[in-house]
Amino acid sequence: MKTRKILLNENEIPEKWYNIVADMPNKPLPPLNPGTLEPIGPEALAPLFPMELIKQEVTNEKWVDIPDEVRHLYSIWRPTPMFRAYGLEKALDTPAKIYYKYEGVSPSGSHKPNTALPQAYYSKQEGIKKITTETGAGQWGSALAFACNLFDIECEVYMVRLSYDHKPYRKIMMNTWGAKVLPSPSNATAVGRKILAQDPNTTGSLGIAISEAIEVAAASEDTKYALGSVLNHVKLHQTIIGQEAIKQMEKAGDMPDIVIAPFGGGSNFAGLAFPFLRLNFEEGKNIRCIASEPTSCPKLTRGVFRYDFGDTAGMTPLLPMYTLGHQFIPAPIHAGGLRYHGAGVIVSQLLRDNLIEARAHDNLEVFEAGVLFAKSEGIIPAPEATHGIATVIAEAKKCKEEGVSKTILFNLCGHGNFDMKAYEDYFAGNIVKHELSEEEIQASIALLDTPEIPE
Amino acid sequence: MKTRKILLNENEIPEKWYNIVADMPNKPLPPLNPGTLEPIGPEALAPLFPMELIKQEVTNEKWVDIPDEVRHLYSIWRPTPMFRAYGLEKALDTPAKIYYKYEGVSPSGSHKPNTALPQAYYSKQEGIKKITTETGAGQWGSALAFACNLFDIECEVYMVRLSYDHKPYRKIMMNTWGAKVLPSPSNATAVGRKILAQDPNTTGSLGIAISEAIEVAAASEDTKYALGSVLNHVKLHQTIIGQEAIKQMEKAGDMPDIVIAPFGGGSNFAGLAFPFLRLNFEEGKNIRCIASEPTSCPKLTRGVFRYDFGDTAGMTPLLPMYTLGHQFIPAPIHAGGLRYHGAGVIVSQLLRDNLIEARAHDNLEVFEAGVLFAKSEGIIPAPEATHGIATVIAEAKKCKEEGVSKTILFNLCGHGNFDMKAYEDYFAGNIVKHELSEEEIQASIALLDTPEIPE
Repeated sequence: MKTRKILLNENEIPEKWYNIVADMPNKPLPPLNPGTLEPIGPEALAPLFPMELIKQEVTNEKWVDIPDEVRHLYSIWRPTPMFRAYGLEKALDTPAKIYYKYEGVSPSGSHKPNTALPQAYYSKQEGIKKITTETGAGQWGSALAFACNLFDIECEVYMVRLSYDHKPYRKIMMNTWGAKVLPSPSNATAVGRKILAQDPNTTGSLGIAISEAIEVAAASEDTKYALGSVLNHVKLHQTIIGQEAIKQMEKAGDMPDIVIAPFGGGSNFAGLAFPFLRLNFEEGKNIRCIASEPTSCPKLTRGVFRYDFGDTAGMTPLLPMYTLGHQFIPAPIHAGGLRYHGAGVIVSQLLRDNLIEARAHDNLEVFEAGVLFAKSEGIIPAPEATHGIATVIAEAKKCKEEGVSKTILFNLCGHGNFDMKAYEDYFAGNIVKHELSEEEIQASIALLDTPEIPE
Repeated sequence: MKTRKILLNENEIPEKWYNIVADMPNKPLPPLNPGTLEPIGPEALAPLFPMELIKQEVTNEKWVDIPDEVRHLYSIWRPTPMFRAYGLEKALDTPAKIYYKYEGVSPSGSHKPNTALPQAYYSKQEGIKKITTETGAGQWGSALAFACNLFDIECEVYMVRLSYDHKPYRKIMMNTWGAKVLPSPSNATAVGRKILAQDPNTTGSLGIAISEAIEVAAASEDTKYALGSVLNHVKLHQTIIGQEAIKQMEKAGDMPDIVIAPFGGGSNFAGLAFPFLRLNFEEGKNIRCIASEPTSCPKLTRGVFRYDFGDTAGMTPLLPMYTLGHQFIPAPIHAGGLRYHGAGVIVSQLLRDNLIEARAHDNLEVFEAGVLFAKSEGIIPAPEATHGIATVIAEAKKCKEEGVSKTILFNLCGHGNFDMKAYEDYFAGNIVKHELSEEEIQASIALLDTPEIPE
């Protein structure tokens, strides 16, 4: 019988997270104070984040210890399984060997708890009583709700009102783990009240929700704020995915030629790819790592490398990133986790240095890929994950055309159990192709008055 | 680090299903032809089921080989993990050791594919082109849709209209795997048209949906019907759960004193418990097996042991079962999988012979149990599964009172990702306690004109 699943036991959960910054030939440029345009230090982050996470945000150490308690709680769902995609290979009639790492086995159904758990842990260690955050579709909010519950920390989630009204089940999931979920804008914050006064019927936005969560965290000593992607410490925590994947590929007696993951803010991609990039750095391997983004939000493939704000309202430090401009509003695609204007700092530098690649896929193409995957492999993928699958299919077809067998590994970052509305829209013919014109992109970038970065 | 998960590799997937009939001291009584009241033979089932499944339905062989192809496809989600419930033990402050087998890792999210897969396989072997079935809340329908897709068999699901209208996401899940889903009653059958003519606005019932699925299957040579519980071959297939569980308990260096599973038609309970009952039969062990049912549908704890129909309309053979009467309509609790008037034949005989036990739990109690589980273990359980958890909690509390440490194993048969509306109702205070009066039960049983079974 051919082996389909490659499993690890929980004593094989990695003991350290991998910090790629230590190995990068060009380190990321520093974040800047938007007023003075001077580099900012870690102390600027202290009102919002626990000290241990700030240390991880700026460390150049190559390995960061995973606390024993975190490892033990990781075992609720980790190590996650790796699958050989026999069904998909057959459906594509490809000589390529396709593997996927499946992160949908976590209680909240995605890779997000990989960082929510340590973030809640360090907060508890530092006496934090409450954590605030924002959420759009709800993947991040539910991961943080799950993690805070494990440490008996209060969790307050500002959920974009449009999602709050239209996706009640994610909200109830968060409630089940004890989190308080508020529709954003809310009356609980000054920012929220101001916006509601201007427009009581607003459907909200991720930018507003971030502002509310930050306002609440900044106002109290024992309340902090948590972010689910983009930042260095978030990427660091996610490297547990790729480290497990290397052990599993070794068990399978194989090693990928190509590593693929969906791309929103970068933590999903970083999680799988960075440990394989380490093998490139250390052992001179040539593993290609490809980030998959939507054509409706193509910061990696069509954005500009420049200092920009991390949020829509322009409240964060300036970060050196590939960006479409912080005022860019992506089309309302179902892959809510990929609707972010910029790429995290580390990934941006890696792309700038041609150490990674990027591909963009259209909304129709990704749903075709998702349904093909569901029918050939069984698991119905989250809309975010279908972007990675679309790249896998393209590479596997190329293998067939060229008559070569490559080994492809991708990150199936979550299941689609809470996204069936998206598939309903697809079957009803309501998913439309969406390609941005060059004018639209240039118009958004033209709004930037932030510092440029010389070649 | 304490080990939380006990895993098996896929070469440890059992090679045979276990048929408990071979070991039963009293074999089940034969099914009867409702017209002649004479025992019926397997040939009566031929219009509806593939021959291999009919053979399995009546076999007295102790072990039935699992075909290699079924074992390979089982590996999409099997072996399923077993967890030590450290979080729940701590929350209950109990000396009991609690383990659970988690069947929610299957693509459709429950134990149902364990039988859907072999049913589709044998149908394919016998040249069947199409399989029909009914579904209520959708767990069984989606399992069969998943399995039929793997073998390229057409799947037609008659879904009770109330669920079809109110639970669209299960329907879309079935569509994603290529199944056709019709609201029942439908215009596709004579039964459906007749009922629609009488009442165009009917919300349907499981009994009507069964009648429609059977009508379509009986009318065509290459179309068969599939059932997701109650029957012997369905229970047989589910024994893969308990067989894996025995290996896992051995790996953990432990063995349960008590085995617990939710009870609807019996396949969930049979799947976990029968292999442990084998140890009682063969090795003289004294493992207590407890079936957990809702107080609103208490056939095991308050029903009568008697011949009765398997369906509401009275179209099936008469079966010797614990029943509340085939016209009993359970309250509309969220645990749709447990809303069945009778118990499968084998389980009924085992209960009659005091070889198993049963407990009933109120609707409020089970949601309290479900939320406690979600908060202490992470996984949000399906409403059906919460009934087993309620029994676990009761037994674990008893251990604490008595100061003894027992080992408890239960079947977490599915996740609640498609049942968040149920939790919403619970948090909103809309879940009500429901206890049947003795008069209600006696009134339903009094409607029976089927043969009694002497003591």
